[in-house]
Amino acid sequence: MGTVYLIGAGPGAPDLLTLRAARILERADIVFHDALVHPEVIALAAKARIVGVGKRCSQISTDQRFINRNLVEAAQRHEVVVRLKGGDPMLFGRAQEEIDALSANGIEYEVVPGVTAALGASAELGVSLTRRGVSRSVVFATPRIGKDQNDDTRGNWAQAVAAADTAVLYMSRGEAPQLVAALRAAGLAADHPAAIVESASLPAARRLHCRLDALPERAGETGPGPALVILGNVLREAVESAERVSTTCNTASDAAQSASAR
Amino acid sequence: MGTVYLIGAGPGAPDLLTLRAARILERADIVFHDALVHPEVIALAAKARIVGVGKRCSQISTDQRFINRNLVEAAQRHEVVVRLKGGDPMLFGRAQEEIDALSANGIEYEVVPGVTAALGASAELGVSLTRRGVSRSVVFATPRIGKDQNDDTRGNWAQAVAAADTAVLYMSRGEAPQLVAALRAAGLAADHPAAIVESASLPAARRLHCRLDALPERAGETGPGPALVILGNVLREAVESAERVSTTCNTASDAAQSASAR
Repeated sequence: MGTVYLIGAGPGAPDLLTLRAARILERADIVFHDALVHPEVIALAAKARIVGVGKRCSQISTDQRFINRNLVEAAQRHEVVVRLKGGDPMLFGRAQEEIDALSANGIEYEVVPGVTAALGASAELGVSLTRRGVSRSVVFATPRIGKDQNDDTRGNWAQAVAAADTAVLYMSRGEAPQLVAALRAAGLAADHPAAIVESASLPAARRLHCRLDALPERAGETGPGPALVILGNVLREAVESAERVSTTCNTASDAAQSASAR
Repeated sequence: MGTVYLIGAGPGAPDLLTLRAARILERADIVFHDALVHPEVIALAAKARIVGVGKRCSQISTDQRFINRNLVEAAQRHEVVVRLKGGDPMLFGRAQEEIDALSANGIEYEVVPGVTAALGASAELGVSLTRRGVSRSVVFATPRIGKDQNDDTRGNWAQAVAAADTAVLYMSRGEAPQLVAALRAAGLAADHPAAIVESASLPAARRLHCRLDALPERAGETGPGPALVILGNVLREAVESAERVSTTCNTASDAAQSASAR
């Protein structure tokens, strides 16, 4: 019986993988990877069979029970089995369902933590998520909007976001209007500072700063890469400076229009 | 003028460093490191001058302004300057003060994110911080107890902890009684599931599961290593199973005492 390694591949850039993860991948017999893991990371598993199980991979079913069963069966045939996830396995990675399946079948596992996407985004912005006198609590959350009616998750994600000094929202860009409405209802001000970070740590990275109420409009400017929304007073300076630039541009543009009208 | 790299060294184990961090350390001319960074990580900077600036390092002053000034001066003399911090620089690392000092002096910097201690602790426990139907929000916080009277941090850390499904408290073990009182006042139940993880990812790692109200007693069982407190229903099974073991032991011990008394 082999060991299953649940490995965090980090926020995007292949060199933000840990040394431990790289060494295990080099020894791997089989690798089950999510869609957003960088090809150069997967390529480290030079002698392994590679199986894509992410929502954007078409190779096999992405049903969680199917993945669990595959991990168990792989561990019965191979020594080194890797389950490779974007970011960190224990934060929005559904690792618990896989761990429970492995434990129930008496299979050894090891979790190799990774750099979570929020910290890749914070590095990309150059803005610390905590700051003396401004933020001593940071919440990471996935909004629960619309479709998850059968999810009986305790508590309210919007209240949790409003109660913390800084918040990072995973997998939320497409639902910006509902997101803003829920956060306004939970007590956040319309001008609460916000940022969208797309494809953090990759060459295609983009950063947008705006007020909370401008998120739906600004979200439309981003591309197809994975994106996070960050909220909090740690961003206030960056947002105000972005607004000054924007106002200056508008003023300049208005002046130019006035001049040409004259 | 050189570049200052603010690098996260990860939760403890030297092989939880990122590939990028290792490559930069190998090129470093000078390294300013915190006290809890593993010696094997520092040793990667084979050609650098090494300066300890953590609270437990005695080499030079640990005053933040002194560190900021040293970083600026080092960048004026060296090409590759490294500021090496435990965990991730942007989460409870006071990175913003250093970034602001570098920016004000026109010095280039790059943040290299790391594996934060909370994710090392989650991996050590084998318990995911999020879980479908149980937790979709995780807050990382530093309690504000007693001494920080002049800190005008917005919001209330205990309310932020109570509002999230899962919470990880950094640097809090020594203040367990006040911590529990504040969290009970914020609405957490006495039997809210809790865990203490000490020296996560290192050979000396320890894990203790208990109810919230038992934290002060159990915190006394831990050693001198860095520790985190984790709270939330994702831990309920682990805590209940630990309590069953503990009750069984007590019953067995009571039975043995009764037998010897007879």
